Amino acid sequence: MLKNKQIFLKETPQDKLSNAHFEIRTSEIPSPADGQILIETLYISIDAANRAWMQGRTYRDQILPGNLMAGFALGKVIETKNNNFNVGDMVEGDLGWQNYSLKSANEIVKARIISSPNLHMSVLGITGRTAYFGMQLANLKNKDTVVVSAAAGAVGNVAGQIAKIKGCRVIGITGSKEKSQWLIQDLGFDGVVNYKNGNWLKNLKELCPNKIDVYFDNVGGDIFESIMFRMNNYGRVICCGALSQYDRAPPKSGPRGIPGIIVTKRLSLRGFIVMDFDDQKEEANKQLQEWIDNKKILVAEDIVEGLENTPSALIGLLNGENKGKRLVKL
Amino acid sequence: MLKNKQIFLKETPQDKLSNAHFEIRTSEIPSPADGQILIETLYISIDAANRAWMQGRTYRDQILPGNLMAGFALGKVIETKNNNFNVGDMVEGDLGWQNYSLKSANEIVKARIISSPNLHMSVLGITGRTAYFGMQLANLKNKDTVVVSAAAGAVGNVAGQIAKIKGCRVIGITGSKEKSQWLIQDLGFDGVVNYKNGNWLKNLKELCPNKIDVYFDNVGGDIFESIMFRMNNYGRVICCGALSQYDRAPPKSGPRGIPGIIVTKRLSLRGFIVMDFDDQKEEANKQLQEWIDNKKILVAEDIVEGLENTPSALIGLLNGENKGKRLVKL
Repeated sequence: MLKNKQIFLKETPQDKLSNAHFEIRTSEIPSPADGQILIETLYISIDAANRAWMQGRTYRDQILPGNLMAGFALGKVIETKNNNFNVGDMVEGDLGWQNYSLKSANEIVKARIISSPNLHMSVLGITGRTAYFGMQLANLKNKDTVVVSAAAGAVGNVAGQIAKIKGCRVIGITGSKEKSQWLIQDLGFDGVVNYKNGNWLKNLKELCPNKIDVYFDNVGGDIFESIMFRMNNYGRVICCGALSQYDRAPPKSGPRGIPGIIVTKRLSLRGFIVMDFDDQKEEANKQLQEWIDNKKILVAEDIVEGLENTPSALIGLLNGENKGKRLVKL
Repeated sequence: MLKNKQIFLKETPQDKLSNAHFEIRTSEIPSPADGQILIETLYISIDAANRAWMQGRTYRDQILPGNLMAGFALGKVIETKNNNFNVGDMVEGDLGWQNYSLKSANEIVKARIISSPNLHMSVLGITGRTAYFGMQLANLKNKDTVVVSAAAGAVGNVAGQIAKIKGCRVIGITGSKEKSQWLIQDLGFDGVVNYKNGNWLKNLKELCPNKIDVYFDNVGGDIFESIMFRMNNYGRVICCGALSQYDRAPPKSGPRGIPGIIVTKRLSLRGFIVMDFDDQKEEANKQLQEWIDNKKILVAEDIVEGLENTPSALIGLLNGENKGKRLVKL
């Protein structure tokens, strides 16, 4: 008989995340009560935010020891006691790190599948749309110099490709030679610097002779600090994530020059969360699918198999293992 | 015979500014060459930015040892070899810390005086308009909770009064009991906290039970850091100045939580410089004058007499001596 495997957070990590912070348990597959829907998970989205959720309350409750590990996922309805959902419906939401979940109607939304299901977890999913809406906020102009950090990541690679579509000069920041080559040769970035190379800032200056108009920041920390000093007047900084800060103890200090440099350079910094744009989701997905069809966006997915590998998939992502969107296929 | 007194920067301050960093010299009053205008200074504007200009290049060149001290001022044309300017014209620009200056036409603008001249250096001057345009960027909504730092300063007091006009709940941050009382009793602030009091943040929380929608930041530093954690989602931070950072050695670190908190709270931070809005200057002055006439804005000026007192006037301002706009009258 089929069982439900579930992964729980065992302990709040104080520094780097490891497998020891998780615990896997097996239980019976639950049955829906009135109004509930039973879902079989197909794909779990692996996101740096998963780690940030362990640090404290953000736009959602903190994940505490003993909690089922939270995670955005795509699933299929397999049993329903809710009239608004039918068996076979594809749904998405925080289904957690488990094979089966019981949800009420307000915890999930129907996924309007217009492409292959996995694509709805990558370029047509939260990370692809994060890139899309973030770049919308950046108000890109033709020939802008755009810098994207974590450029080979799920959000970064799409953000960079969108900036290319808009006629910008796009420079990526990434952490390996292999990813650098991939970004330039396969995705069409104009240049890439490797932040693990001591010369990265010098290299970046050379690649941005007209300085930086838009910085799409996925990492925060020292890279954020350095880039702020390279921005053009009236530059726009899209604050999408702070990956460098998630898998460590809270830092004792923040970036120098803030907010003075925001004033003197007349910068605008804008934070956002993709869920705030849910009303424009279908429109965004339509545009992204069109770009995929026209080969303007290359889909980069990094698919890991099996629920039991979910912790390692996240740990690896935090260490920069992935190229493009990392998913766990159940 | 009349002479020109001039104040030069003698040495770049490494920490707090003192009179020893300046040197006063006396010279002949110069004569205009073809195209030039000779101006007698009436009022010198004392601004925290004067100190920031000594720290390095910003939106203007650094003031270096040996340079005439820069400063925005209002003056009267007393001799002219330029057809676009007549004797008696009121002009403004960076006339520097001196009684008389020779300028070419592109270094000054004619002041369209619609009120008493001193008012054109306070509420109708760069500081009043800084408050005006900054609050325009804040997109104030009725009942917003607005916090203003350096609230008794030239910009802060007007910024707070404008937010009151717009129907907001306005809380000031200032550094003395006397200034706190003045802000509440005379300017109509809803509450004030004294940042020199160890309980200031606790007091601020109590005064902002619905947290903070708009923070008009004149100071940066620890206050900026603390306020960021009290912002509401979708809050707006107007980065106007970083007074806490000007009169000291450059700090080793910046505010914690940046940029992570910008993301999770979906904040927008916006830096600006009043000169960027020069095309809307007359419109702003008209509105400000109307508010003054209707007693919606109380004019607060702090006028020091005599060029030789200009260094002390700036040093005092950096130490929080002034209430409202500090000017030196020559």
